[in-house]
Amino acid sequence: MENCKFGTHRVLEPKGVLPQPAWKIDNNPDIADNEILIDVMRLNIDSASFRQIVEEVGKDEEKIASKILEIVDKRGKMHNPVTGSGGMLIGTVEKIGKNLRQRDLKVGDKIATLVSLSLTPLKIEKINKVIIDQDQVEVEAKAVIFESGIYAKQPDDMSETLALSILDVAGAPAQAERLAKKGDVVLILGAGGKSGLLCAAAIKRKFGKDVKTIALVNSKRSLENVEKLGMADEIIQLDAKDAVSIYHEVYKLTDGKMADLVINCVNIPDTEMSSILSCKERGKVYFFSMATSFTKAALGAEGIGYDIEMLIGNGYCKNHADVALDIVREIPALKEIFQEKFSK
Amino acid sequence: MENCKFGTHRVLEPKGVLPQPAWKIDNNPDIADNEILIDVMRLNIDSASFRQIVEEVGKDEEKIASKILEIVDKRGKMHNPVTGSGGMLIGTVEKIGKNLRQRDLKVGDKIATLVSLSLTPLKIEKINKVIIDQDQVEVEAKAVIFESGIYAKQPDDMSETLALSILDVAGAPAQAERLAKKGDVVLILGAGGKSGLLCAAAIKRKFGKDVKTIALVNSKRSLENVEKLGMADEIIQLDAKDAVSIYHEVYKLTDGKMADLVINCVNIPDTEMSSILSCKERGKVYFFSMATSFTKAALGAEGIGYDIEMLIGNGYCKNHADVALDIVREIPALKEIFQEKFSK
Repeated sequence: MENCKFGTHRVLEPKGVLPQPAWKIDNNPDIADNEILIDVMRLNIDSASFRQIVEEVGKDEEKIASKILEIVDKRGKMHNPVTGSGGMLIGTVEKIGKNLRQRDLKVGDKIATLVSLSLTPLKIEKINKVIIDQDQVEVEAKAVIFESGIYAKQPDDMSETLALSILDVAGAPAQAERLAKKGDVVLILGAGGKSGLLCAAAIKRKFGKDVKTIALVNSKRSLENVEKLGMADEIIQLDAKDAVSIYHEVYKLTDGKMADLVINCVNIPDTEMSSILSCKERGKVYFFSMATSFTKAALGAEGIGYDIEMLIGNGYCKNHADVALDIVREIPALKEIFQEKFSK
Repeated sequence: MENCKFGTHRVLEPKGVLPQPAWKIDNNPDIADNEILIDVMRLNIDSASFRQIVEEVGKDEEKIASKILEIVDKRGKMHNPVTGSGGMLIGTVEKIGKNLRQRDLKVGDKIATLVSLSLTPLKIEKINKVIIDQDQVEVEAKAVIFESGIYAKQPDDMSETLALSILDVAGAPAQAERLAKKGDVVLILGAGGKSGLLCAAAIKRKFGKDVKTIALVNSKRSLENVEKLGMADEIIQLDAKDAVSIYHEVYKLTDGKMADLVINCVNIPDTEMSSILSCKERGKVYFFSMATSFTKAALGAEGIGYDIEMLIGNGYCKNHADVALDIVREIPALKEIFQEKFSK
């Protein structure tokens, strides 16, 4: 299957699967007509993957570099075989396949990939520096983006670090503003973290007073972030696992009507029931948290006879990167929080 | 919290959680004003739970009965501590709390619970018979249904066994006919099993030729079931894990437009990518399969930049039991398949 838009033509083994589940892919920098070649400057290794490597070889720049070279040499991609995860990369566009030249992209543009390194063909010539505190690696390398691959142009008006910290959770705010409707009560669990703050900001930017936002936070730091952002109409400070107490708080704040939309941005397990119980009949729960258990959500709603729609948080939606970056640009308090707390 | 509609007033330990995650609940048959007392005839133990008990104590009716009595005595509910699962029960309504008397239910009605035994207060007086082949237990017992609990009246026109085999997957067809729209192409993965057949039938009953159904099956038995039902416009026989081949088949059958709605009723892992790849941009994937991995779905869609809506299969939706029973009543071929293959 030459030139498959998902990149299956580059899968070496096992045959027939997609590049992400594949063990080894072809990292040849001669691109097909529907591929893009990137001159890579920096890898942002997934934090679980980076931590595993440090644990395995020690906090030693050279040994970490060797391990990364070894993995990429074996697999044709920076796909950690232990954690299964990848990361993202930044680089400049070196070549655009002729079938993709109608895109709003030109040679020399600086871009960040929004698909995982675990599926991105990568050939490293040299590792120049390992920045241990940031899980980042400065490299001389080439990478290939498939026709189905997604990426964002590095904005001129903010630092790479800030842009990366926003793009990391870009799926959440664009989905949030798409799911909310005028008149809704929206409950955000984990409202003080990166994705939670972006969701609150996205909804308030679009709907203002036409949507009531309730922010659920637990830590003092999260509470401070939400207060500083100033886009929550109500704040509940409770453990996100305490389903019954949260239910009663939301009940009080909504005169028993409960939330039309619940957005779960928490990163701890066992918060499914809190999300479900706070939702009204035929309302929606959007699980953006990667700690969500499919069965706990499915059986939890059934167990109390709740007819609600539960959505799996898709990390991608159309224009998600632009939406996320624009929100931070337009809201100074949000930009400040991201710069102070999430981009160091 | 007296008379909580979710039954938290019956939680003994740990305090503050819901009856399902609770270790022990109060099985006192003196019901509150918003509860229903059931005179239980038969427990249908969840198959994972029943198998675990048989493995632990052997295929011995008396020992199985003792084990069940021991669990219910300890926890106040038939909530297997090893598997975490429950099952359902059949019985007759003995008493209706005064706040629930406006419901369409009267003392003496025979009902099956549609919430899990893992959250249902149960007091067993005597076990009369253990029917090992059916995972069922004939009992003299009392059970309590909470205000939020759901149940279905046993239909007069079919056997208990047939009704139970339908009610077991009742969430699927009602959701399927709600999600489909006129003009849609609907792909059903695992179309030859109970829930897959019910989904195909539900959609065809409602939309007829206005929806095109594509059935994906793997085994010969499943293929036979789908052919006998006669409600698939196209049939693909492939391993549900083979994402790329399925993509190409669906591509051919839809002239590249792909499916508007994908319903995943498969009971094996690693079918997320097959579902995602077969779906069109802004289409929907409904994961009814309990083998679905939340992260594989979320990262899988992101990895190929697919802007689709992915739904967690809720075992409950309004009128789901009536919808499922009616479909089987109205479609003789479906009733025959259920009687022959699923109710033995």
